[in-house]
Amino acid sequence: MSTADTQWRTRLRVVLVGTTHPGNIGAAARAMKTMGLERLYLVSPERFPCAEATARAAGADDLLAAAVCCDSLAEAVSDCAWAVGTSARSRHIAWPTLDPEGCARQAIAGTADGEVALVFGRERSGLSNAELDLCQAVVHIPTNPAFSSLNLASAVQILAYELSRAGAREPVAPTVEEPAASVEEMERFYVHLEEALRSIGYLDPRAPKLLMRRMRRLYGRARPLESEVSILRGILSATLAQSSR
Amino acid sequence: MSTADTQWRTRLRVVLVGTTHPGNIGAAARAMKTMGLERLYLVSPERFPCAEATARAAGADDLLAAAVCCDSLAEAVSDCAWAVGTSARSRHIAWPTLDPEGCARQAIAGTADGEVALVFGRERSGLSNAELDLCQAVVHIPTNPAFSSLNLASAVQILAYELSRAGAREPVAPTVEEPAASVEEMERFYVHLEEALRSIGYLDPRAPKLLMRRMRRLYGRARPLESEVSILRGILSATLAQSSR
Repeated sequence: MSTADTQWRTRLRVVLVGTTHPGNIGAAARAMKTMGLERLYLVSPERFPCAEATARAAGADDLLAAAVCCDSLAEAVSDCAWAVGTSARSRHIAWPTLDPEGCARQAIAGTADGEVALVFGRERSGLSNAELDLCQAVVHIPTNPAFSSLNLASAVQILAYELSRAGAREPVAPTVEEPAASVEEMERFYVHLEEALRSIGYLDPRAPKLLMRRMRRLYGRARPLESEVSILRGILSATLAQSSR
Repeated sequence: MSTADTQWRTRLRVVLVGTTHPGNIGAAARAMKTMGLERLYLVSPERFPCAEATARAAGADDLLAAAVCCDSLAEAVSDCAWAVGTSARSRHIAWPTLDPEGCARQAIAGTADGEVALVFGRERSGLSNAELDLCQAVVHIPTNPAFSSLNLASAVQILAYELSRAGAREPVAPTVEEPAASVEEMERFYVHLEEALRSIGYLDPRAPKLLMRRMRRLYGRARPLESEVSILRGILSATLAQSSR
C-alpha cells in the first residue's frame, strides 16, 4: 500500500450497531485489518469486551482495544461528512441504494470532505429506519434470493475488500517479472522443435505444417518466458543428441 | 438470478483441503450459499461432520449434507477442466497469479469447457506445492501486508462474491471448442514427460522436481486440449522409442 493509498483509511470508520454475538465483533475486526482498515466503532454491543471477540480477532485485537464505544448511532456518526448504512432488504422509503463497488468509490471520495462511516446493523434485524435516517445512502450486497443470510463479519469483509480495491491506485505488480520470450526466440524454438520432431520420426512428411501449426497454437497460448524456452530448447538438444547416436 | 446466470454454478465446486476447524467449514458453506454456490468438496477435513460446522452454516447445512469427502486433492479435482488454488504468499516459481476478479472471470469462462474447482488450503499452511501442482493457476486476494491473516471462510466469501458479480455480468459463451484436457489426463502426461526426459538424459537427477514443476507451470498456462495432449504424448512415445533403440 502506498502513502496515497493509505490516506483515505485514516478518515474511514466501521460502525457496528447493537451486535449480539461478540465473536462477530472479533471477526469483523479481523476482516477490517486484512484490508487495511483500522477504526472500529461499537454502538451498544451486547457483550464487549469479551474473550470470544478477542479470540476471533486472531491478531486484530489492537482494533478491539482501540474501538470507540458509543451509546447511539447518532453519537458514532455525528462528526461524519458521509455515512452509509448496510441493508439486506428493501425499505418502504427508498434510500439511494449503492452496490458494494459504488459504495466503496463514494466512501473514498467522501474522505476528501471529512470523516466517513460504514454502518452495519444487528445480526437479526439490521438497522432501524431511525438509524438509516442518520445515513446519507444505503449499500446493499447482492445475495442469493433464496438464502440472503450473510454473516455480519462477511458483510464487513466484502465491503472492506471493495474499499481496498477502490483505494488501490496502482495495479497489482505482475508476479512474473522475468521477460517473456520474444517472437524471434519463439521462431528459433519452432525451427528447433521441427528438427527434433523429424529426428524422432514423429513429423508426418505428408502434412508437416499441420502439426507445427498445432504446436504454435499450444505454445503460443502458454506465452513462455525466456528461461522456459531455454529449458525447452535444452530438451530438444538432448533429444537430437539421443537420436543421432 | 436468471437461468443463464445459474448455469455456470452447476459446474463449479469449492474444494477445502485439510480444514482444521470445523466451524470454518460451516462458515464457508454459508458464504457459498449466500452467493448461490452449492457444491462443496472436502479433502481430509480434521473433523467432519461436526456440530460446530452445522451451527456456523446457519441454514446452509444442506451444502454440508451434500458435501463430497475425498482423501486427496487429486481425487477432488481429477475430473476438472480447470482448477485454481488460493495462495496467501508468493512462491519460488511463479504460478500464473490472478486477482479475485480475474479468477472469477476465468473460472466462469472455464465452465464452458467442463468442471471448475476453486481450491482453498489449510488455515495455517495453505496448499502444499504438490497440491498447487494440480492447479492451473493461483489466485491471490490482496491483503494488508502487515496483516494478511484472512479467515478461510472470508476468503471463500470474497471469491464467491466475485464469482457472483462476474456471473451476473457475463453470459457464458456457448462451447465451441474441443474439450480441454482434464487434470487426470494432464497428470498422465506429466508422468509420461518425466519418463521421456529421463530417457534422453535431460532430467537432472539432483533436482528432478524443479524441472517438472517448471514444465507444469508452462503447460498449465497453455491449458491444452485433449487432442493436443494426444499429440504431445505421441511425441513422447516417439522419443522413448527412439532412445531405447
